[in-house]
Amino acid sequence: MSAASSLDFLPRLSNVALVVHGGAGTILRQNLTAELEAACLAGLTAALRTGFDALRESEAENPALDAAEAAVRMLEDDPLFNAGKGAVFTADGINELDAAVMDGRTGRAGAVAGVTTVRNPITLARAVMERTPFVLIAGAGADALAAEFGLEIVDPPYFFTETRWKQLEALQKRERAEGSTFLDAVSLSEDNKFGTVGAVACDGRGNVAAATSTGGMTNKRYGRVGDSPIIGAGTWADNATCAVSATGHGEYFLRLAVAHDIAARMRYAGSGLTEAAYAVVNDALAEAGGDGGVIAIDARGNAALPFNTAGMYRGYITWSGEVAAAIYAD
Amino acid sequence: MSAASSLDFLPRLSNVALVVHGGAGTILRQNLTAELEAACLAGLTAALRTGFDALRESEAENPALDAAEAAVRMLEDDPLFNAGKGAVFTADGINELDAAVMDGRTGRAGAVAGVTTVRNPITLARAVMERTPFVLIAGAGADALAAEFGLEIVDPPYFFTETRWKQLEALQKRERAEGSTFLDAVSLSEDNKFGTVGAVACDGRGNVAAATSTGGMTNKRYGRVGDSPIIGAGTWADNATCAVSATGHGEYFLRLAVAHDIAARMRYAGSGLTEAAYAVVNDALAEAGGDGGVIAIDARGNAALPFNTAGMYRGYITWSGEVAAAIYAD
Repeated sequence: MSAASSLDFLPRLSNVALVVHGGAGTILRQNLTAELEAACLAGLTAALRTGFDALRESEAENPALDAAEAAVRMLEDDPLFNAGKGAVFTADGINELDAAVMDGRTGRAGAVAGVTTVRNPITLARAVMERTPFVLIAGAGADALAAEFGLEIVDPPYFFTETRWKQLEALQKRERAEGSTFLDAVSLSEDNKFGTVGAVACDGRGNVAAATSTGGMTNKRYGRVGDSPIIGAGTWADNATCAVSATGHGEYFLRLAVAHDIAARMRYAGSGLTEAAYAVVNDALAEAGGDGGVIAIDARGNAALPFNTAGMYRGYITWSGEVAAAIYAD
Repeated sequence: MSAASSLDFLPRLSNVALVVHGGAGTILRQNLTAELEAACLAGLTAALRTGFDALRESEAENPALDAAEAAVRMLEDDPLFNAGKGAVFTADGINELDAAVMDGRTGRAGAVAGVTTVRNPITLARAVMERTPFVLIAGAGADALAAEFGLEIVDPPYFFTETRWKQLEALQKRERAEGSTFLDAVSLSEDNKFGTVGAVACDGRGNVAAATSTGGMTNKRYGRVGDSPIIGAGTWADNATCAVSATGHGEYFLRLAVAHDIAARMRYAGSGLTEAAYAVVNDALAEAGGDGGVIAIDARGNAALPFNTAGMYRGYITWSGEVAAAIYAD
C-alpha cells in the first residue's frame, strides 16, 4: 500500500464512484525513485478528482461516461503513463495509439486503433460511438475522422518523451545484441510494463461506463493491436453487470475475452463483481500465463481492482470524495 | 429450404463435422437467378467437401482447424462470396480484407484487419496465431508479415470483380443523389448483404475450431473494422463450449460480443449449444436491432445455424459425408 493512500484496497470495495488504472506489470519498489512514485500517485489522484468533478457536473444521460472519459484524458495528457502524451514508440519511432469506450446504459461502444495525430484518442473513441454508426475504426482513416470532427490534432512530435525514446533505443540495442526480432517477443518480456490507462465509473443512478487508452508496446511492429481497443477484451460496460477496463499482456486478454467474461460470470453464473473479477484475473488469466489486471465497477458502486503482477498503478474515489491511490501489490 | 439440400436444417442438428456460411442479409428468392442460386449452393458444397477432406486427412493436433481453414480458403477463392476474391470495394476502390481463426483446443487465436495483398487472409490469420506471439495485426504491417512468411501475395487487381465494382458505383451514385455520406450509414441499409464467409468444425475427438473472413462493407471509409476479425465478436472457439463464426451487421455483433456470449451462456448458464445460439441471434441480437446470423458447433457434433434475416448462405456436412446447403429462411 502506498503512503499516499488514505483508504484500504480491500478486495471488496463499496461506495466507489470512479476507479482508474495506469498500467500493470513488473513494477518494483526498488525501480522507482521516491519522486517518480509520488508523481505517479499524483497523476492518478488528479485523474480521479477530475473524473469525479466531471461526474458531479455532468448533464449527460450517463454521467459515468463523462467521468471515465475525463479521467482517461487526464492520464493521456500525463507523460508518465503510456497513453496519449507519454506513449511508447513503435519500431519505426512513431506513436500509434489505441482507445475504446463503452456506455453501459446503451450498450454502445466506440474504439480506434493505430491513430497517430489525435491528442486524446479516448475522445475520438467516444466520437466514433456517438457520431458514427460504427464501433471500431483503424489507421489513417481514424485520424482523418478526428480531423473532420474537429478534435484536437497534434503533430507527431507532441507525443515525444525522452524516457520512451530511451526505452525504444534500449530494446532495439538488446534485439541487435541477442539477434532476436520482434516476433521472438522480446517486447513481451518481463521488462514490459504493459502500459495502458483506463477508468470505470458509476453515476449512482444505475449507470456505468468504461474507458481505456494505450500507446501499445515499445518497439511494436507489423501493426500489432492489443486488447485495449477491443470491446469485450480490454473494455466492457453493461449497466446490468459491470464496467471493466483492463491492462496487461494484451494477447491473453484477447484470447480470454477478459472484460466480457467478467460480465458473463455475473450475468449467467450469478457471481458478484468481486468474485467474477478476481476469478478471471487470478485464476483464468493467471493459469493461461497472462500478466495484468483489471479495474471493475458495478452500478451500485462495488469495485474490484485485481491484478496478478508485482504492481498496478491504480486508484479510486468514493462517493464522499475520498481518494486512495497505490502502485505495488503489498 | 433449397432444392439442393438433401437434409433438413432443423434447429438441433447432430453428427455434424463442419458448417459453413457465406453471409446473411436481405437475400430474397426473387433477386437471385436460378443460375446464381445454383452457383452459390455449389460453392458452399465445394467448401464443405474440401473442408471435410482436410478434416479426415489432417495430421494436426486439432484437425478441426485444418477443416475450418480449408473451407474458408475455398470460399475466399470463390468470387461469389465477399471474402478474398470477390471482396467488396471500399470508397477508395480498393479491397481491404479481414479474417480471424481460433483453435478451441489451445484457446489461441489469430486475426488480421485491412490487408490488401494477401490472397487468403484466413491463412495469414492462422500464421499470426501459430507463428507469432500476437493475436491481431492490422494494416500494411499485416501485408508485410504475410510476405515475410511466404504466403501467396497477389496484386490488388486480383480481387477485382465486375459485380462488386458495379455495387460500389451504384452505392456512390445513390450517395450523390441523396446527398448522404458514409457516416449516414447508407452502406448499412437493408440492401446490404453483410457478406462474410466462415466455417466451424469439430474433429470427433473433442476439438473444435472457427474461421471467419470478409471483404467488409461496400463503399467503406475511415478504416472501419467489423466483427469478423474480432475474437469474441465474430469468431470464437473453445473445446469446452463451442466454435462460432458470425455474419451480419458487424457493429451489433461487436457491442454484444456475440460469439463469446454464446459460449458464456453454455459455460455459465448451462445452456445447450442450440439454446445458446438461438437465444443470442433471435433474442439478444434481434432485440438490439442487429441483423445477421451465426454458425455454431460443439465438440460432440451438435450444430446450430440461426439467423434473423431473410436468408443466410449456409451448409453443413455430417460425419457420414452427407451435405446440406441452403440460402433462404423458408
